[in-house]
Amino acid sequence: MELLLLLLLLPHLAPGAAIPRSPALMSLGSLHLPARPTSRPSIARNYSIFYFKQKSLAVDHFGFDVNKTFKQRYLIADKYWKKDGGSILFYTGNEGDIIWFCNNTGFMWDVAEELKAMLVFAEHRYYGESLPFGANSFKDSRHLNFLTSEQALADFAELIKHLRRTIPGAENQPVIALGGSYGGMLAAWFRMKYPHLVVGALAASAPIWQFEDLVPCGIFMEIVTRDFKKSGPYCSENIRRSWNTINRLATTSSSLQWLSEVLHLCSPLKNFHDVQMLKDWISETWVNLAMVDYPYECNFLQPLPAWPIKVVCQYLKDPDVSDQQLMQNLFQALNVYYNYSGQVKCLNISETATSSLGSLGWSYQACTEIIMPFCTNGVDDMFEPRSWDLKELSDDCFKQWGVRPRPSWITTLYGGKNISSHRNIIFSNGELDPWSGGGVTKNVTDTLVGINIPDGAHHLDLRASNALDPKTVLLARSLEVRYMKQWIRDFHAHQGKAVLNNF
Amino acid sequence: MELLLLLLLLPHLAPGAAIPRSPALMSLGSLHLPARPTSRPSIARNYSIFYFKQKSLAVDHFGFDVNKTFKQRYLIADKYWKKDGGSILFYTGNEGDIIWFCNNTGFMWDVAEELKAMLVFAEHRYYGESLPFGANSFKDSRHLNFLTSEQALADFAELIKHLRRTIPGAENQPVIALGGSYGGMLAAWFRMKYPHLVVGALAASAPIWQFEDLVPCGIFMEIVTRDFKKSGPYCSENIRRSWNTINRLATTSSSLQWLSEVLHLCSPLKNFHDVQMLKDWISETWVNLAMVDYPYECNFLQPLPAWPIKVVCQYLKDPDVSDQQLMQNLFQALNVYYNYSGQVKCLNISETATSSLGSLGWSYQACTEIIMPFCTNGVDDMFEPRSWDLKELSDDCFKQWGVRPRPSWITTLYGGKNISSHRNIIFSNGELDPWSGGGVTKNVTDTLVGINIPDGAHHLDLRASNALDPKTVLLARSLEVRYMKQWIRDFHAHQGKAVLNNF
Repeated sequence: MELLLLLLLLPHLAPGAAIPRSPALMSLGSLHLPARPTSRPSIARNYSIFYFKQKSLAVDHFGFDVNKTFKQRYLIADKYWKKDGGSILFYTGNEGDIIWFCNNTGFMWDVAEELKAMLVFAEHRYYGESLPFGANSFKDSRHLNFLTSEQALADFAELIKHLRRTIPGAENQPVIALGGSYGGMLAAWFRMKYPHLVVGALAASAPIWQFEDLVPCGIFMEIVTRDFKKSGPYCSENIRRSWNTINRLATTSSSLQWLSEVLHLCSPLKNFHDVQMLKDWISETWVNLAMVDYPYECNFLQPLPAWPIKVVCQYLKDPDVSDQQLMQNLFQALNVYYNYSGQVKCLNISETATSSLGSLGWSYQACTEIIMPFCTNGVDDMFEPRSWDLKELSDDCFKQWGVRPRPSWITTLYGGKNISSHRNIIFSNGELDPWSGGGVTKNVTDTLVGINIPDGAHHLDLRASNALDPKTVLLARSLEVRYMKQWIRDFHAHQGKAVLNNF
Repeated sequence: MELLLLLLLLPHLAPGAAIPRSPALMSLGSLHLPARPTSRPSIARNYSIFYFKQKSLAVDHFGFDVNKTFKQRYLIADKYWKKDGGSILFYTGNEGDIIWFCNNTGFMWDVAEELKAMLVFAEHRYYGESLPFGANSFKDSRHLNFLTSEQALADFAELIKHLRRTIPGAENQPVIALGGSYGGMLAAWFRMKYPHLVVGALAASAPIWQFEDLVPCGIFMEIVTRDFKKSGPYCSENIRRSWNTINRLATTSSSLQWLSEVLHLCSPLKNFHDVQMLKDWISETWVNLAMVDYPYECNFLQPLPAWPIKVVCQYLKDPDVSDQQLMQNLFQALNVYYNYSGQVKCLNISETATSSLGSLGWSYQACTEIIMPFCTNGVDDMFEPRSWDLKELSDDCFKQWGVRPRPSWITTLYGGKNISSHRNIIFSNGELDPWSGGGVTKNVTDTLVGINIPDGAHHLDLRASNALDPKTVLLARSLEVRYMKQWIRDFHAHQGKAVLNNF
């Protein structure tokens, strides 16, 4: 999620400067497309059974003056679907191309047969190809006015009704919402707001409490730090030390040049602003690594080795090196993340000019509803101290989009911590994942359950099964399946009763 | 609710004619202000302890482009409120001046001491003095765009949060939503959508199922007919006969003149269109009487005697009169409703030029979200046959407001009949009330309860207690209080537990 870095970057922008949208920003949070998409994603070969569909939906579900429609894209697969006793697994798409989420949510595929499930992946409006106003969708606040979580949930509701109405056999099937990260928030919120349409929700790595003061603003970066601390001796200490080292080295133009060379930067650092950009870019790298610290080699935000933080920390284990050596080690560490393929010639911290629909949309959402306070103090975390400044965010959002955040609206709408009257939501969290800090990590009631995965990073449970999966994620997945089967059974039992009662 | 008559009137409008807004239309449904308000209502003397407040709220809770606020009016009384173990009863205002609802909801006052309750009456946006754009609020579809039930619920949510934040002692108090008619629908929907803000809802005479095909479109008028049928011999038969009699008599200008004189009309009937207006106005009179068939003399929509339909039917009990005599009897019957005071010189069927904010707002809502199908067949009811024609409604709404109805949206949003996952809602209905046809009249679950009042008309239970109240309404009220006390106890018990758990 960009907001963290959005915020960290802002104090250093020249007055009136636009909020930068760097690839690094984009990748903060799995909530985003891979950092440098060279082309639109295509369905992974494993999932070629999906077919593409579109549904015409109201641009504004909550008002009648704008009577326009747009086409929402969704993917659907019915290979394992059974009309008798089956189910529909509905992925509540988040801020990116739905194909990318489909490719990274193998869990749904893995359980389809057992749950006799139809799979549906619904794209979130304003992302991928589901653009309400085509190329004009991000033009101004008037065109962006319909980019909210409420509108997205209403899209999902209309789509589910459409599927039930038009697919023979689907009308009496239980639907389960699933999603990861912001998509997990949407899955949980969808069950809260539309319980008549979904029998339950699996909300993976969904930081629904990363709002207002529901959790401490520092918890996110504390978890990032904890991951590095336990991945190698002196790793977090060397990172904490690195900021001042950079500051010390960045005082003369010759030392800036030296630093640029040591870090293999594509564009040499020229001034204080560049140095701040560098530090923000490095911070985001550590954050991203904490999110994707998976137990096997894979390509989520970047191609990476198994347990990438351990690999990174191998270059940061010496407690007593010179400033110069620390910078050389830092380069090696960063290189793990940015150049696992070995093909990259230099590291680019200034690709802020590349904008994708995903990053534009998220930047708007992070300026309106999705206001997540973050802070660091440099003591409980390994970052430079930075406080949470809503006023500054608000002013910058107004400059960029002509809108101001409403930081308490999400809590008003979705209940904050007071969610115990809802039922049938699984909140799963990986303990390595910094987003778990804003997640629901213990049972709220018997049917609002928290499942923790000690060895899991950002929604590891939603990924396809892998021989290197830790036991804790296998256990989590089997629990999740058990709950989902229960919801499906309850639905079919109730359906029978309902028919008998003619109600 | 105007829609019924809106519909009944439409087939007879000249192309392009505006949908008429008559006082008769206004009074269809208790949902409206009294038929001819000569001045703004003032707080009844009994309730002078209320004080008036305003809260600044976002005009658009669901979008960020229109960053305006408006002042919502609310009334508040804390005479019986106890911080220790007390509660907040929150009336979810419907389509009219909130003072009028306050004056007609004596039940809340009557139970305030027992529930140690603070009383709050929140005015619905676009009604009374809570106008988002002042005098321009009804100017066009752009200004009306924020008149929806969702926006109204969001207003209530923000107001409750404001009260809890600003009134010392209110922060840890359970809030119960109460409302009648459309306000009852809002109370139920509020509990469904914001269960973190209200522990339960009393939805009195709330026709939440009068949408799509959830109930037969004819049920409303069948109940009206049943009320007349049992209030006197040949009463409904004479009314059924009256339409053809009017049609037969309305063929020549001299017979029109005669009819106008017999009915004491202020403006003589001139043509076919006037005759249709007359019949619609008479139909509405019977509908209104069915809604306000209260056991004691009172002034709700009009000053009326106790059990007014019985009084009306005394003039319609002769099975075998001439057409002429039937018309004379009809006048006597109508005169009960329009001239109980004896002060009225003539009956006015054409006050359609008088518009009030209430009727304007409701006419818009009945063209957008609140699409309630009604029909008659002249067999199961005593009215002229009229089918439900959505296309025609849509075209007329487009002509008048530039908007088109979305008849399935309310069901998509609020769940239609599939509401069993919610808890703590009382649906009370009077069996005399035609709106009970679209209401929840039996238990859905243990905590979604239907309370029926055999001798009750439109939300009789919400009215102040009266010596002539039938036992069935006393029983209903005592059940309602018992449920509310249980919700309050549960809340306080849970609060204690929550504090212990530090959750």
